[in-house]
Amino acid sequence: MTAAGDERHQDGCVGILAGGGPLPGQVAAAVSETGRPVFIVAFQDFAEPSVVERWPHAYVRLAAAGAILSHLRAHKCRDIVLIGPVRRPSFRDIRPDAEGARILARLGRALFAGDDGLLGALVRVLGEEGFTVRGAHEFLSRSLGHAGPLGRCVPDENAEADIVRGIEVVRMLGRLDIGQGCVVQNGVVLAVEAMEGTDAMLARAGTCRQPGDGGVLVKLCKPGQDRRADMPTIGPRTIEGAVRAKLAGVAFEAGGTLLTDPQACVAAADAAGLFLYGISGTNAPGS
Amino acid sequence: MTAAGDERHQDGCVGILAGGGPLPGQVAAAVSETGRPVFIVAFQDFAEPSVVERWPHAYVRLAAAGAILSHLRAHKCRDIVLIGPVRRPSFRDIRPDAEGARILARLGRALFAGDDGLLGALVRVLGEEGFTVRGAHEFLSRSLGHAGPLGRCVPDENAEADIVRGIEVVRMLGRLDIGQGCVVQNGVVLAVEAMEGTDAMLARAGTCRQPGDGGVLVKLCKPGQDRRADMPTIGPRTIEGAVRAKLAGVAFEAGGTLLTDPQACVAAADAAGLFLYGISGTNAPGS
Repeated sequence: MTAAGDERHQDGCVGILAGGGPLPGQVAAAVSETGRPVFIVAFQDFAEPSVVERWPHAYVRLAAAGAILSHLRAHKCRDIVLIGPVRRPSFRDIRPDAEGARILARLGRALFAGDDGLLGALVRVLGEEGFTVRGAHEFLSRSLGHAGPLGRCVPDENAEADIVRGIEVVRMLGRLDIGQGCVVQNGVVLAVEAMEGTDAMLARAGTCRQPGDGGVLVKLCKPGQDRRADMPTIGPRTIEGAVRAKLAGVAFEAGGTLLTDPQACVAAADAAGLFLYGISGTNAPGS
Repeated sequence: MTAAGDERHQDGCVGILAGGGPLPGQVAAAVSETGRPVFIVAFQDFAEPSVVERWPHAYVRLAAAGAILSHLRAHKCRDIVLIGPVRRPSFRDIRPDAEGARILARLGRALFAGDDGLLGALVRVLGEEGFTVRGAHEFLSRSLGHAGPLGRCVPDENAEADIVRGIEVVRMLGRLDIGQGCVVQNGVVLAVEAMEGTDAMLARAGTCRQPGDGGVLVKLCKPGQDRRADMPTIGPRTIEGAVRAKLAGVAFEAGGTLLTDPQACVAAADAAGLFLYGISGTNAPGS
């Protein structure tokens, strides 16, 4: 995008393609605060009615690309944000409309190759259709975790070593398009995240902890991950999960992680004596 | 070991250091069939009484290395087999005896570096103490899964592609000393095994399956893994888990995987229409 392109769209309606969770509503609120109108295209079975129904919206099936594009065009949305989790569709359940079938043919195998393949391809197709796909973080900059400790607690030496090991593991998970997180305790990888998501992984890590203290959840963007399509998020539920798993803290990628409710996250972490630590290229332990 | 060394020990008592599960008993039976006596050193809290108490045995704590070595020496065991899962100890819970403290100092950080580090170091120390550590597979050759399909079912084209992806993932898990298995469905990595073990991973894979058929459990030795210390095992419970997760089959490393009850495994797989497929260097899909 050129600056001129940014200029041209800056007062138009922003289209939000909404999956689950509270973030679509937070993006809508943040956009609205800048004075721009929003329109939410809510993915049926994924978007939460209580979140999207406070804004102008329409429900569509995930594969009804024709319907999605007409809603966006009817509301003159040029800027688009994809936000909130959806499950990957299967060929059998997808039932595309006519426009959807055309786009599916274009996406091809990328649809089934992994999250990155799918969402990256979606961003590319929307771009080819004349839309500008924005990252949620462009609107939610206040919710972006910064480098260093967010609350009162900081990682000790053991936790720093676990963060270093976790970074190594998650980078490799990302290269294989598997997942974004793992839990490490005293050098032992307790749990690795794939399709089950972070909450389920945290619950499991609690049950297979090794004797002794410590443990860190490490969550990072995949290398080369398109932040406009899928950013790691941390919310109060993540902190609760880390507390239940008796972890020492949570390390995330500074500037690359959305906190769904930053104040609540920090308050919960402080109350439990957990660190919340933003890793950047320059402050990563061991770098 | 030289042939002369093998000669010297071939009629002595075999010492079995026993963790959990049925395999210690199966090794004892296989050794006994060759006419050699056995003595089981059963790790307290891990070895199953119903398994070990049918043989000459003594219970010891995992870190009571002095007690372990005296039992082995008292029964003139020169050949040793380590078999059956144990959890990694922590410095806090380990309470070594005097000999144990000496050996722990020798093991040092390897104890906490990951399974390979710990068990590999243990094999080395036992070798230095004058014992010959044998692989369970040397006695249980009939329980070693061979290359190709074990039962009636064979992987289809989709399953072969999932096996290729699974091999890539598990090799990398192994290089990072994380775990031995993963579940792949139509190219998507559903679940990755760390400390929770294969059964828990299979249960999870069932809950986060993507729409559509298929899915393969891939289980492999870690690269460079010492087979005398820790071999992947597959038992009837593994097959049950794969059936419940609606998988198409199980792929394992031919010659490098112990089947705890080969006949029951094949019967259960055949009954459920699941393949059980031994991967070797020459018949791996994609090779």
